[in-house]
Amino acid sequence: MVNASIITIGDELLIGQTIDTNSAWMAQELNKAGIWVKHRVAVGDVWDDIWDALDEESQRADIIFITGGLGPTADDITKPLLCKYFNGKLVLDEKVLTHIKSLFEKVFRRPGPLLERNIKQAEVPDTCTVLHNERGTAPGMWFEKDKKVFISLPGVPHEMKGLMLQEVLPRLKTHFTLPFILHRTAFTAGMGESMIAEMIKDFESLLPPSIKLAYLPNYGMVRLRLTTSGFDKEKLESSLQAEFEKLKFLVRDILVADEDKGLEEMLGILLQAKGKTMATAESCTGGYIAHLITSIPGSSAYFKGSIVSYANEVKQNLLGVSTETLQSAGAVSEETVKQMLNGVIHALHVDYAVATSGIMGPDGGTPEKPVGTVWVAAGSKEKLVTKQFHFRFNRERNIEMTAQNAMNLLRKFILDVPEQL
Amino acid sequence: MVNASIITIGDELLIGQTIDTNSAWMAQELNKAGIWVKHRVAVGDVWDDIWDALDEESQRADIIFITGGLGPTADDITKPLLCKYFNGKLVLDEKVLTHIKSLFEKVFRRPGPLLERNIKQAEVPDTCTVLHNERGTAPGMWFEKDKKVFISLPGVPHEMKGLMLQEVLPRLKTHFTLPFILHRTAFTAGMGESMIAEMIKDFESLLPPSIKLAYLPNYGMVRLRLTTSGFDKEKLESSLQAEFEKLKFLVRDILVADEDKGLEEMLGILLQAKGKTMATAESCTGGYIAHLITSIPGSSAYFKGSIVSYANEVKQNLLGVSTETLQSAGAVSEETVKQMLNGVIHALHVDYAVATSGIMGPDGGTPEKPVGTVWVAAGSKEKLVTKQFHFRFNRERNIEMTAQNAMNLLRKFILDVPEQL
Repeated sequence: MVNASIITIGDELLIGQTIDTNSAWMAQELNKAGIWVKHRVAVGDVWDDIWDALDEESQRADIIFITGGLGPTADDITKPLLCKYFNGKLVLDEKVLTHIKSLFEKVFRRPGPLLERNIKQAEVPDTCTVLHNERGTAPGMWFEKDKKVFISLPGVPHEMKGLMLQEVLPRLKTHFTLPFILHRTAFTAGMGESMIAEMIKDFESLLPPSIKLAYLPNYGMVRLRLTTSGFDKEKLESSLQAEFEKLKFLVRDILVADEDKGLEEMLGILLQAKGKTMATAESCTGGYIAHLITSIPGSSAYFKGSIVSYANEVKQNLLGVSTETLQSAGAVSEETVKQMLNGVIHALHVDYAVATSGIMGPDGGTPEKPVGTVWVAAGSKEKLVTKQFHFRFNRERNIEMTAQNAMNLLRKFILDVPEQL
Repeated sequence: MVNASIITIGDELLIGQTIDTNSAWMAQELNKAGIWVKHRVAVGDVWDDIWDALDEESQRADIIFITGGLGPTADDITKPLLCKYFNGKLVLDEKVLTHIKSLFEKVFRRPGPLLERNIKQAEVPDTCTVLHNERGTAPGMWFEKDKKVFISLPGVPHEMKGLMLQEVLPRLKTHFTLPFILHRTAFTAGMGESMIAEMIKDFESLLPPSIKLAYLPNYGMVRLRLTTSGFDKEKLESSLQAEFEKLKFLVRDILVADEDKGLEEMLGILLQAKGKTMATAESCTGGYIAHLITSIPGSSAYFKGSIVSYANEVKQNLLGVSTETLQSAGAVSEETVKQMLNGVIHALHVDYAVATSGIMGPDGGTPEKPVGTVWVAAGSKEKLVTKQFHFRFNRERNIEMTAQNAMNLLRKFILDVPEQL
């Protein structure tokens, strides 16, 4: 098995000012290519810490990725360090310089002479292979030392991604003989991790040692992932698939999907297959469901829009919720989400919709309706279902939980699945 | 300086199925408490890798955090390992067991006898101090060995957060003598990292060695962060503030805020101070701006709602965009966003609004309007401004860039700042 380590450089990661999304993306892509990420490390902009990380990670992995620390400003020490670590000297790369000039002229629309610090970005250690960064000014660098490969990439996510896909992965595939790593994921909802484990414990204990099972709980749903790896792809696929079929049968009552897709993507597939449209009427989720659905490319084929009715007057004026309902039952009530649902279906002329109203916190709770009380409705012109939820804790999590459960309620409504599942 | 390392356990992090948001949050809180996170490591569910990480990180830090690997299912090996590492044996903790029972009865609403695997969650090494996990079944654990502190926490974010705030941080503050770590952040927009660095290079070279400057570019904005640390809080504050005032003066033309707040939060502060309300009319951002704004607690005081008009008929029916405009100029045009803006201001009776329309990709581009073409309008009943943007690359980034720039356009409109800034 070819192992990789990812070293992420930057104080902003260590003081928590930035969330590291790069490593997860890189790990996914490497995994698809048959490379196992064994270790991930984040270090600050400190010479000795970076140096030690290079030493340590090269003991444990075949490929060492270094991201970050390549920007044009003075807090970056990575390039001089790499130069010294790989016994090189900095030289100006003419091809990189030409590329930087053209980026400034054509993309950043800032013609004229380059700043000294931007010219410096074209300097690379003469001991590396330069990797062309189509999307930015800092080139990638590929070093080899003691049979290990070291790859330095900029930390800007879209630049790193472009470099990985266009330059790094193709080279790794020719440099190493890579195995296949295969996953199958079953997406379940409605049962906790412990209960599922109890239900499938015989299956788990009889799994061949080459196949690993993992439980991945998230927002009230649990994904069950089977993983295997090796060189005989056909054999791997068939043995993995056989176990996966058993697993799917065992969890059939709580199975949402046999693919690792989000609910927003599953809803889209469902609606497109049926040629139907949808909309949302959102109070407490404040547009988040609409955002999740429109984050899927091509969603304009089935998503018409949303009325985010944060204020009660918007619920009345645009969704036709009655004053009487708001006064007697309140904004967070079954009757209100029913009227919101009907309102948005008629206003946007859609086949299906989902409506939410709740108290997300930290303030606004009452003894009868504490923070985390949520009503959701899903349905069509003819029919609808409603459901009440009681979430706890923080606002961010309550919004996420409401959105996920609302999408699942609509999914089940469209599929006509009984509510207890 | 008291140093910490964070070890995150779980294959899901190494194959990229989960993004590690825990470490960033922990680092922020530790930093506020005067603890410097020196190193972060992610390892898989592998005995030797976890053991080695404990050995290595205890060489480099005073406090070693271990998150994850404490769930009720069989892929977790962390607790037995901690037991062996700290020479303890597993014993049933009656207080933890009582808490687990009460959670199942009152919160998960699953009364009756506990599963064996849930009872097991009440087992802890007898060499640790148990940390009460109000929010979940897996307790935190505090170990001490060779003057180092080891803290094991569950990986579920809201459980980890509760434990950190209620149990861990108060104990660390009594256990160690902690210095102050202070930051000041200037939020700028409208100029690239290199140009800013050029503008403030004299300032940077004259900074006292105790104060560090970092550039944090993100979505077309750059935050400039000054950091210092020590024990004399007053002296630190005054010297940091003096440098910060110089910095703010130097970047005054591009300064958005002198606090490290997101634009959604700044907009909220501005609107509340003026007692004004706002709404959004979103096409290409699909509700994302509304989501960002409603992610701020208390936003219902100034945010009334949104009309997400993904389909053209919604632009016409609910926002009053004319058929003629859609046919002649198209949905992605200055005229359309102007009409969307006026439409939402009148439909939702608000003082201010922002409207977006663009092509987010990957499909839908044309030679005249390639992917990344965006029109934004911001204004009030009386007046409005519009701006065209040309973003590049992927859908997710284009949505984020549009939202950030739209909020900034509205912020500047409300403040009546000239557009070139």
